[in-house]
Amino acid sequence: MRMYDIIMKKRNGGELSREEIDFFVEGYTRGEIPDYQASALMMAVYFQKMTERETVALTMAMAESGDRLDLTGIKGVKVDKHSTGGVGDKTSLALAPMVASCGVPVAKMSGRGLGHTGGTIDKLESFPGFGTALTTERFMENVNRIGIAIMGQTADLAPADKKLYALRDVTATVDNMSLIASSIMSKKLAAGADAIVLDVKTGSGAFMKREEDARALAEEMVKIGNSAGRKTLAVISDMDQPLGRTVGNALEVREAIDTLMDRGPEDFTRLCLTLGSRMLMAGGRASEPEEAEELLREALKSGRALKKLAELVEAQGGDSRAVYEPDRLPAAKILLPVPAPRDGYISRIQCDEVGICSLVLGGGRQTKDSRIDLSVGLVLCRKVGDPVKAGEPLAMIHANEEGKAREARSRYLAACAIGDGPCACAPLIKAVIGA
Amino acid sequence: MRMYDIIMKKRNGGELSREEIDFFVEGYTRGEIPDYQASALMMAVYFQKMTERETVALTMAMAESGDRLDLTGIKGVKVDKHSTGGVGDKTSLALAPMVASCGVPVAKMSGRGLGHTGGTIDKLESFPGFGTALTTERFMENVNRIGIAIMGQTADLAPADKKLYALRDVTATVDNMSLIASSIMSKKLAAGADAIVLDVKTGSGAFMKREEDARALAEEMVKIGNSAGRKTLAVISDMDQPLGRTVGNALEVREAIDTLMDRGPEDFTRLCLTLGSRMLMAGGRASEPEEAEELLREALKSGRALKKLAELVEAQGGDSRAVYEPDRLPAAKILLPVPAPRDGYISRIQCDEVGICSLVLGGGRQTKDSRIDLSVGLVLCRKVGDPVKAGEPLAMIHANEEGKAREARSRYLAACAIGDGPCACAPLIKAVIGA
Repeated sequence: MRMYDIIMKKRNGGELSREEIDFFVEGYTRGEIPDYQASALMMAVYFQKMTERETVALTMAMAESGDRLDLTGIKGVKVDKHSTGGVGDKTSLALAPMVASCGVPVAKMSGRGLGHTGGTIDKLESFPGFGTALTTERFMENVNRIGIAIMGQTADLAPADKKLYALRDVTATVDNMSLIASSIMSKKLAAGADAIVLDVKTGSGAFMKREEDARALAEEMVKIGNSAGRKTLAVISDMDQPLGRTVGNALEVREAIDTLMDRGPEDFTRLCLTLGSRMLMAGGRASEPEEAEELLREALKSGRALKKLAELVEAQGGDSRAVYEPDRLPAAKILLPVPAPRDGYISRIQCDEVGICSLVLGGGRQTKDSRIDLSVGLVLCRKVGDPVKAGEPLAMIHANEEGKAREARSRYLAACAIGDGPCACAPLIKAVIGA
Repeated sequence: MRMYDIIMKKRNGGELSREEIDFFVEGYTRGEIPDYQASALMMAVYFQKMTERETVALTMAMAESGDRLDLTGIKGVKVDKHSTGGVGDKTSLALAPMVASCGVPVAKMSGRGLGHTGGTIDKLESFPGFGTALTTERFMENVNRIGIAIMGQTADLAPADKKLYALRDVTATVDNMSLIASSIMSKKLAAGADAIVLDVKTGSGAFMKREEDARALAEEMVKIGNSAGRKTLAVISDMDQPLGRTVGNALEVREAIDTLMDRGPEDFTRLCLTLGSRMLMAGGRASEPEEAEELLREALKSGRALKKLAELVEAQGGDSRAVYEPDRLPAAKILLPVPAPRDGYISRIQCDEVGICSLVLGGGRQTKDSRIDLSVGLVLCRKVGDPVKAGEPLAMIHANEEGKAREARSRYLAACAIGDGPCACAPLIKAVIGA
């Protein structure tokens, strides 16, 4: 088998066999196939697309290219959750304890933030002492003991995807549905869960700006997961404005705690209930969404879900007192309001721009090596559809430097549009695919 | 300017500017742009094509990427000729002396053979002592003194093309008309002639199998040449069976000598007259093809063209006695006929297969470093359309090893088809483009 023939076949619109895809992925991971042939193939794939069979084969080959987590030592149906990323997306922080407190084990690998989107691992580190570099043994032990553990992604999970994504990133071959789907799913498959619930975001703060693209990506990933023998479904949710009211690491942790105390923002609570109910069903704890939601609401009301977060923090070396006394979380020195320039109704909050406000404040990473300030961020006082009077705050900037605070304020102002009349807010949950 | 943006622009169907193409070619030649970005761009070009403006810009940038020959020291209009390559294509051997003997200076750079096609430089080395590694000064001196010089291609002519072609060759991005045309023309432009006559071959022995592709390539190259200020035209000629009757280095030299003595095969003589008349016109020696042909026929009849070949051989250190006594050329030890298996008419001679027969005998290069045997080859006794009786020779194999001779014989038999009735031979000259 020759890489040249594989490029030629795809270039000419042929369907690559499982053997050909394995040959490419294995050879490329080992460094036997050079980058220049891999990038030519990626560009050919961009133009000729991949069939469902090819996409599944590519995903499997990448999932098998390095370490795979063996979760069979954990009792019960393991359900993983993945979000395609957004602004103010603190979902795992509340969702994982909610689901775990209802008896479905959560063994989750999470990532760090980059650019205008945040990462669960960074947010969790707002708890003083919290550690995410667990050994696999400790990870499994914790899940078996308290039903929940969240760790950073190990280096050798799907190394083929890591190498290929870095190449695609510099050769203008990222935006192909099959390649995006296989990149995400290869890591999920290697992480070993029995079932996968995907939160595919769409809107100005998401990777998929258009709902039709989000839907296509969701369908592609659901097909891959099910073909690989993992029960998979996807929720398509809005990311055209930030989720909830906070953006920034410690601020989002506070909001997740509020939500676990059953006093969180409506949209964020709604998303947690929708994703959580699907996770409970996948885990065999409920057969209908309504039944599952009832269980989750009960976990919130009773304080069991909040207690589960405290157990998680404790088990991973963090100061669990912060769960009940959030003032122990990092806090910024400066509070600067963003006053509304006029009366009216909020018609738009350009979501990626709000992410950049947080980045400007020091709460996100410009590059992989940037240090982040966990205390800074924004609290939104008005969301799309809300009325506002001139001078009332649109948001509060939490900062540690005056100059950055002012820059974030003017950026936030520019990101908000205020209209004359009331306007409808886009629905939060747009679809559930694969249910 | 970033290479990423250039790839993205082409991928999305945009037209690259002269500046963007220069940035790519210069950066790639200097090794600042990596192979993996260049191959992604080439694949994007394969799918999105290049406009005429882009193709001209790419050609110019590659032509300017290394040394350029300055032929202004040579008196008169310098006319170059280029063939896209074929089997038995000894055209330059006869054509160059014919044109030079009519007063148009020929300052020609030629290449060596590879695979099933031969090269002028190899063929000329059949003259004992003949040297093609001339300095530029010596090359120009010879042209000024005797009107003709043929040298091997220097290493640093259009290095961008050399590097890019090697990359395209292993990434399935060779067959794009703009890229093929710019590759050929960049070297021709760097070689410095005032006018260029192209011989674009089509048929089973040519790079362009289909006549429509040969025509498209010819049109592309003529446009490029004229845009670059060089008078350029192209003749499209048949390569569906070998040209003339000989294939193999010294055998082809003998046939060229026969042709210069005005007793060569009809097809080969015809091609030399057609190309030669266009070269004389481009060189200002004639205004009509008929007038030019008359001059060339006179050069053949008078022996002036043959004498010019002897001068060329002499001037480059070769034994010019071989021009008048061809038995001084290398000769093979074994002569093996290929007998016709049945009565009939030759309906087809699979041309690339005949080239491979010569390769098998040791007369061509499998790889760039192969040594070649100048004496071996084939002499065709029958060509397409000729009648033949069972047992009569289809061709004579000239070999130095029995085993190779037999292998060539069976390959040649398989390459020939004999039909029941007479059949028409494809016309040799199919079109003249750009006249």
